[in-house]
Amino acid sequence: MRLVSFTRPDGIDTYGTATDDTVFDAGAVLSAEYPDLKAVLAAGHLAKLEGIGVPLLMDSVTLLPPIPNPEKILCIGLNYLPHILESGRPRPEFPSIFTRYPCSVVGHGVAIERPLASREFDYEGELALVIGKDGRHIATKHALDHVAGYSCFNEGSVRDYQNHTTQFWPGKSFERSGSMGPWLVTADAVGSIDKQTLTTRVNGKVEQYTSISDLAIGIPELIAYASTVLTLRAGDIIVTGTPGGVGRYRKPQLFLEAGMDVEVEITNVGLLKNGVIDEPQPA
Amino acid sequence: MRLVSFTRPDGIDTYGTATDDTVFDAGAVLSAEYPDLKAVLAAGHLAKLEGIGVPLLMDSVTLLPPIPNPEKILCIGLNYLPHILESGRPRPEFPSIFTRYPCSVVGHGVAIERPLASREFDYEGELALVIGKDGRHIATKHALDHVAGYSCFNEGSVRDYQNHTTQFWPGKSFERSGSMGPWLVTADAVGSIDKQTLTTRVNGKVEQYTSISDLAIGIPELIAYASTVLTLRAGDIIVTGTPGGVGRYRKPQLFLEAGMDVEVEITNVGLLKNGVIDEPQPA
Repeated sequence: MRLVSFTRPDGIDTYGTATDDTVFDAGAVLSAEYPDLKAVLAAGHLAKLEGIGVPLLMDSVTLLPPIPNPEKILCIGLNYLPHILESGRPRPEFPSIFTRYPCSVVGHGVAIERPLASREFDYEGELALVIGKDGRHIATKHALDHVAGYSCFNEGSVRDYQNHTTQFWPGKSFERSGSMGPWLVTADAVGSIDKQTLTTRVNGKVEQYTSISDLAIGIPELIAYASTVLTLRAGDIIVTGTPGGVGRYRKPQLFLEAGMDVEVEITNVGLLKNGVIDEPQPA
Repeated sequence: MRLVSFTRPDGIDTYGTATDDTVFDAGAVLSAEYPDLKAVLAAGHLAKLEGIGVPLLMDSVTLLPPIPNPEKILCIGLNYLPHILESGRPRPEFPSIFTRYPCSVVGHGVAIERPLASREFDYEGELALVIGKDGRHIATKHALDHVAGYSCFNEGSVRDYQNHTTQFWPGKSFERSGSMGPWLVTADAVGSIDKQTLTTRVNGKVEQYTSISDLAIGIPELIAYASTVLTLRAGDIIVTGTPGGVGRYRKPQLFLEAGMDVEVEITNVGLLKNGVIDEPQPA
């Protein structure tokens, strides 16, 4: 099942399921019980969405990130060996974790914004997973039971701000600098996530390509580690890291500018595409 | 004015004002309009709290962090020169920012928890400020207009997890590992924040002492920098960094164990005190 959150033509935010070109407004039927998709996940009631809701042309709605209001977005740095090597760092023993806030993420088809403060706006194609069941101290062998599904993520990064100090956060949370979507695909519909590949294209040209199986620290280990620190909750997002080929380490360097577009495609998951605009001047 | 959030003896979470030994349940009167203290701040209506609410003995309630549900908690690393020097790092040009989640913070008088996963549980006494007015791209000269007030913060840190990689987040977000309170003091009641001093005591013995004026990057500059990245919103918390004297760099080292207590006292702001217990074994 493909799960979406979106803004209807009348301006109302809602959620439901999707095919390639149609979304189904399940929220119009279920919103009294579940105000948003996160609430459906938390209740363990995804099955209620199936076949529910008025169909709308996908082109007539504005897609939001599949979970627009997660409690947490945990991002993993440096988790594919080629990217680790290109940035001159050793193979990791532990996951490198920083956070983004939801205001830094837009949905599929919505423009991401190059900040006024920087010219070093870079792409990072990544696999995101969404937690479907709360848990603390989750054992690796049970970790996949806590995954609701997968999505594509462009972990847009402002490199100078990322490297002002050792802490990446400032470069990773610029408003509307990243994207997620087009939808959340339930794990059962993806098949083995390790068998999928991730491709990032800038203006149609491939800049990143990897097998998900090349993750240095795998999905069960990421979930186990993060849940040692705190309770993972339904709707929480773990963005699993980017492979080699980011613009900063490319020769010549490739930074994003207004008018360009970025695609992150993961087999059996989807294709996330966003144009780039300049951040509007403050009023 | 001193602002508090607390759980009443009947188990209801509410908010209001406080004197040394009494809290006033303004939430019982105003909760239909403002569900929590963050909503009062966002509306710019703190004045409505004054003199409102049934008085309750402070000892009869459980204090929560003054803002229990902030959208963001931005923590500044390495922001007093003695602590920068003790950790062997150069003087910063930019603030080092990482985040904590609200589940990592308890209120005054509630025990903080040493995680099962680590024996390296350390204290960090810090000044926290709370944003009272939304803003993006805030100029340093206007930054203090966005501060609602100040509070004491114990930025409890799990040192081995903090140093598993370059990113501090895992060591900074263990559940119930930090604390904030006892209250939020409005800026007008503090006087010049630069003239205040911060003292951290472990089991009654002074381990950290600094003047707030020794901040390497000052409060207006922290607000301006963070608001370059994203919109700061009412209720957001900036924890401004810890001075020298943390347990990790002490000789001999001093880590927190069950039965100990930590006090963080800031003149004209308050005294935050928390016992230490071990994290309960998982069920």
